[in-house]
Amino acid sequence: MVEIAVMGHGVVGSGVVEVIVGNRENITNHAKEDINVKYILDLRDFPDTLYANKFIKDFNIILNDPDVRIVVETMGGIHPAYEYVKACLQAGKSVVTSNKELVAAKGAELLAIAKEKNVNFLFEASVGGGIPILRPISQCLAANEVYDIAGILNGTTNYILTKMIHEHTPFDKALETAQKKGFAERNPEADIEGHDACRKICILASLSFGEHIYPENVHTEGISKITSEDVDYAASGDYSIKLIGRARRHNDSKVEAWVAPALVPSTCQLSTVDGVFNGIIVWGNVIGEVMFYGKGAGKLPTASAVVADVIDCVKHLKSRKYLFWRDGSTSDIKDYSESKTAMYVRVCGKNAKDAVKNVYGEVKPLHRENQPDDELAFVTDIFTIKDHEHKMEELKTQGARVLGSLRVF
Amino acid sequence: MVEIAVMGHGVVGSGVVEVIVGNRENITNHAKEDINVKYILDLRDFPDTLYANKFIKDFNIILNDPDVRIVVETMGGIHPAYEYVKACLQAGKSVVTSNKELVAAKGAELLAIAKEKNVNFLFEASVGGGIPILRPISQCLAANEVYDIAGILNGTTNYILTKMIHEHTPFDKALETAQKKGFAERNPEADIEGHDACRKICILASLSFGEHIYPENVHTEGISKITSEDVDYAASGDYSIKLIGRARRHNDSKVEAWVAPALVPSTCQLSTVDGVFNGIIVWGNVIGEVMFYGKGAGKLPTASAVVADVIDCVKHLKSRKYLFWRDGSTSDIKDYSESKTAMYVRVCGKNAKDAVKNVYGEVKPLHRENQPDDELAFVTDIFTIKDHEHKMEELKTQGARVLGSLRVF
Repeated sequence: MVEIAVMGHGVVGSGVVEVIVGNRENITNHAKEDINVKYILDLRDFPDTLYANKFIKDFNIILNDPDVRIVVETMGGIHPAYEYVKACLQAGKSVVTSNKELVAAKGAELLAIAKEKNVNFLFEASVGGGIPILRPISQCLAANEVYDIAGILNGTTNYILTKMIHEHTPFDKALETAQKKGFAERNPEADIEGHDACRKICILASLSFGEHIYPENVHTEGISKITSEDVDYAASGDYSIKLIGRARRHNDSKVEAWVAPALVPSTCQLSTVDGVFNGIIVWGNVIGEVMFYGKGAGKLPTASAVVADVIDCVKHLKSRKYLFWRDGSTSDIKDYSESKTAMYVRVCGKNAKDAVKNVYGEVKPLHRENQPDDELAFVTDIFTIKDHEHKMEELKTQGARVLGSLRVF
Repeated sequence: MVEIAVMGHGVVGSGVVEVIVGNRENITNHAKEDINVKYILDLRDFPDTLYANKFIKDFNIILNDPDVRIVVETMGGIHPAYEYVKACLQAGKSVVTSNKELVAAKGAELLAIAKEKNVNFLFEASVGGGIPILRPISQCLAANEVYDIAGILNGTTNYILTKMIHEHTPFDKALETAQKKGFAERNPEADIEGHDACRKICILASLSFGEHIYPENVHTEGISKITSEDVDYAASGDYSIKLIGRARRHNDSKVEAWVAPALVPSTCQLSTVDGVFNGIIVWGNVIGEVMFYGKGAGKLPTASAVVADVIDCVKHLKSRKYLFWRDGSTSDIKDYSESKTAMYVRVCGKNAKDAVKNVYGEVKPLHRENQPDDELAFVTDIFTIKDHEHKMEELKTQGARVLGSLRVF
């Protein structure tokens, strides 16, 4: 019998307890040990649950109970999750977390403590919800140098974009529906503005490249500026607009990392990842391209990943799973202005067409219904972001109004 | 330093040696030990390779060398691979294989020996080439009861079907191109007739459900009867024809397993898995649906999976990875005639339309270019295969000629 504690009894935390109780036989089969939830830490009371007697409000009970070998953290946010997780690791307990904000901000530090104390710090659920992705990268692709990762990492924004694409719903309306359905939070900023996707691409990049990539060093754009017109123009060229997170190691060892909406061609597997699903493509030097797909959030999918990590901790109580990255610095990061991409550009104005011709030469126009005569949208050749910015300045100088611009994936 | 031997120096075997030498630093980082290929077993001579001095022709040299702790088998076929692998396991060596025919036929027996001898028998590369699939099922989905698996498991047939769908190439011509490009063997029967996909679904089912499912008990149909007309009719209803392998555990614990071409609706993620790529969907009771996608064959992708298994063996030289299934019997298998599905049916004849109306009621017709007046194709409601057969007999009795019928996924 292995005793564990679960910190936080929100959506994910309550799912973890449910799964451990509900799939007990299967889990014991895999773990080769019975797993018992000894404590559930939450400031709220849950008198009506089956586990009412397990609830505690004082973290120190967990910390000071030597029977608790594994602690699950599903509280979210950095404080006090960080202090609690750190204290548990330092006390020689293994920790499993679904908290992407914590891992993206403090991963290197917490992994170093876990290494020193010879315990496990696992966080499969922090990226892609239940989709197996961190363990496949670190174990199944161990023969590879992973050099590129790109994915749809946020289900909320993908749900909104899918509604904009397939049902012609404007952004505000799509967001409202997402909120009603519980796919978006009342304060949707972390999702809509790309911060959630940014944390996940940071974790993927840190694991794949071995050095911590911090969110504040990653160029991050959200989807709130995408219009129905952009969606229609994109469709005419066989593109879907998706919020993409990407991290790529260049030959000079610098990492290009960004989160931005992008036009994804229909030939790319990511273009058909719709609704609340996530899809993550990983490129390795031996395997080529692989993709992982599934529900990136939700109570049970996320609990599935947390419990798999708990099982792994139980099987490795005396040894340590190899999962590690060093601390990193800004000098490892490529300047976003040097990132190369083709660009979707939408302009209007009496002189717009001439201006486009002067700046870009001949372009192949995209189309939409009810397109005004003085409006033009097109996809450019590949340039650096810096050069794109210069060109768009030049368009303005020549009298064109730039209504929108987006990366092409 | 861990010494290994590689048996077979064909496409996969030579890839394994290349990857171990070429990605040495990365591999040592992951394995925490240097890995050295001590012997390569092959009946042929390879005087011009860099490893010419490692070649041997006598298996007993490997078997009797106590320094060799891990043996890689990439010879293919059942004999003598089975005898060699068995002897290695019995001698206390761990074995890694890419040989799906061997695992599908002898998996339960070899896993039992590995268990008894406390060594590892790993075979990630036997399904989906380099795509991580067996390890994710057994580890990342450990909190789940996996109850259903469906996939495009054979790249050769998927390449042929993709050419038929996107380039309107007839079957024979598409097969010829596949052979020219090296995607199909000169004797393509194992691929075309579904035997290769059948071995893979057997391995996936055995691992997921815990009991060996043998290929001879799995209904297997190939793609050689698919016509361009079928492809066109399917497209008119937004379906792509794909060779699907599926294994599903029903509530009575019986397993429904089959390999057959099927009409896949465009809303299903598998419909966009094109060319030589494979895609495998797994359903678990906690996680819901997840999909794994990538190149299902090829020298380096397959070598990637083999080497990841070797690394895992190195890390678990003293313990055993949990990967196991019991022997199984035909009583575990649901009779194929009881399998329930909607069916695509194509009929012709003067009385065809009346016959269809009498047998199925009103149907929604599919369409194709140059469709003769007396031809009709449609998708039925869901019935058992047995009932479908009765209905098609009835169609014939009423004067309709059945030109083709295919499952709908």
